[in-house]
Amino acid sequence: MAVIECVPNISEGRRTEVVAGIAEALGAVPGLRVLDVQSDATHNRSVLTIAGDAASLRAAIPLLFERTLEVVDLRLHRGEHPRLGAVDVVPFIPIEGVTMAECVALAREVGDLVGRRLGVPVYLYEDAASRPERKNLENIRRGEFEGLAARMSQAEWAPDFGPAHPHPSAGATVIGARMPLIAYNINLATDRLDVAKKIASAVRMSSGGLRFVKAMGLALEDRGIVQISMNLTNFEKTPVFRVFELVKREAARYGVNVLESEIVGLIPQAALLQAAEYYLQIEGFSPNQVLENKLRE
Amino acid sequence: MAVIECVPNISEGRRTEVVAGIAEALGAVPGLRVLDVQSDATHNRSVLTIAGDAASLRAAIPLLFERTLEVVDLRLHRGEHPRLGAVDVVPFIPIEGVTMAECVALAREVGDLVGRRLGVPVYLYEDAASRPERKNLENIRRGEFEGLAARMSQAEWAPDFGPAHPHPSAGATVIGARMPLIAYNINLATDRLDVAKKIASAVRMSSGGLRFVKAMGLALEDRGIVQISMNLTNFEKTPVFRVFELVKREAARYGVNVLESEIVGLIPQAALLQAAEYYLQIEGFSPNQVLENKLRE
Repeated sequence: MAVIECVPNISEGRRTEVVAGIAEALGAVPGLRVLDVQSDATHNRSVLTIAGDAASLRAAIPLLFERTLEVVDLRLHRGEHPRLGAVDVVPFIPIEGVTMAECVALAREVGDLVGRRLGVPVYLYEDAASRPERKNLENIRRGEFEGLAARMSQAEWAPDFGPAHPHPSAGATVIGARMPLIAYNINLATDRLDVAKKIASAVRMSSGGLRFVKAMGLALEDRGIVQISMNLTNFEKTPVFRVFELVKREAARYGVNVLESEIVGLIPQAALLQAAEYYLQIEGFSPNQVLENKLRE
Repeated sequence: MAVIECVPNISEGRRTEVVAGIAEALGAVPGLRVLDVQSDATHNRSVLTIAGDAASLRAAIPLLFERTLEVVDLRLHRGEHPRLGAVDVVPFIPIEGVTMAECVALAREVGDLVGRRLGVPVYLYEDAASRPERKNLENIRRGEFEGLAARMSQAEWAPDFGPAHPHPSAGATVIGARMPLIAYNINLATDRLDVAKKIASAVRMSSGGLRFVKAMGLALEDRGIVQISMNLTNFEKTPVFRVFELVKREAARYGVNVLESEIVGLIPQAALLQAAEYYLQIEGFSPNQVLENKLRE
């Protein structure tokens, strides 16, 4: 069975009972699993992690909008995190037995449903983007909810689906498809923040490093060490092991050792199998050789 | 849900329709999965790989004996592989959500059922063994079916369950619990068989090496290279990565590089996650962070 992950971000992070109610409604959709719910009061925002096949997500996402629109009014919303809508972002992520193209198709279908049924304007982003300047979420969200009406009056910011003006209380929404994101940190056996910053700069795409790495150097004050904090946005093309080896190599330049690395939250199995395959030099390996995968075929 | 793997070996490898019939009967047991069936005509022996929870295996194994006893008569059986019975060996292997102790308990329960219902004497082996000299399968099987009556007349070879004399057509059987076995080979970038043999000798337990490694050096004539062919009998205590690193280190002593390694057949996910965790120096990692595992919780 196909498994698609979906990580909707909604603009409510304080009334946890309201968020729990929405999660519960999603959990009742046949075939859908609610894996995680994280609310942040400062951001006034919640991140839901759900998973299922295309059919269950086609049912769940419009329901998510209905429920959220009943309880969230962006005109009254305050929080530190930038946001454009009550349901702010909805990425579909291919996990198993499903292609990125199918996730893009799903994003378009769901976008169409949301635009027509809920009257919320929809922008497609990342792999589902209809034009290059809409690939990047931050670019679409610039000006936030408060600047939305002015922005939508420009022809180039006509939405992909739904009305040509903001929904009064729910603003607009961003729906799309992307690869799973891995939050990956490497801690160095030093307190030299300049070294962490130099290495972050060497490995991240924006300053000349690896294509699918975002990185910054920071101090872990309480431990007296520094960290390269990273997001790996496409582990198939920029694998975890290559990032690790490059950081280790750069650190050696400064006479610094890697102390440890850490995976924050979830990681696709394939990203770890890749590492085992690389370091053990395994030829002709197939994920079907993993006993647990065979059991679930 | 608990997953126990079971790999019964039966003494029939030529009449494939007979083996297929037995596999089909097992496949009909609720909760049981037939993962693989391999028949060898020279050995006149088949290896079935099945999996399920304790309840499904408690139902399946007596059924396996019934069906096999109907069609296999060891008095007429010829084949190259040593064997003691029609159903020769039945190991239970803990895979997920189940302990070795539970697999040992299951082996005893099933052994009792088989002894009473089918009248086949049962020897418990490996982790389920009732005395040290019964741990090793080869030790129990010495003398084979043909020598069984004489052997069972000795007090120290009284079976753990069932009658004190061989079943006329089905002999005896060996039931037990063991860790999953990993068939793991490392190929060297050389044709020097002496190097492969020396390394095999250095890493295997029997000549002073790692506790849970069986190894031999052999030539891959067609490729002009040599191989360390290994069985890893407890990857939790002797992990794959440590075996690989030790072989690589020993090879360096002879100026030889590791060309590649290969996993033959199935490998538990944990054995590969171990390797990723080791090489990437991941601190505080939990298998629950693997997205696919989370999905199946």
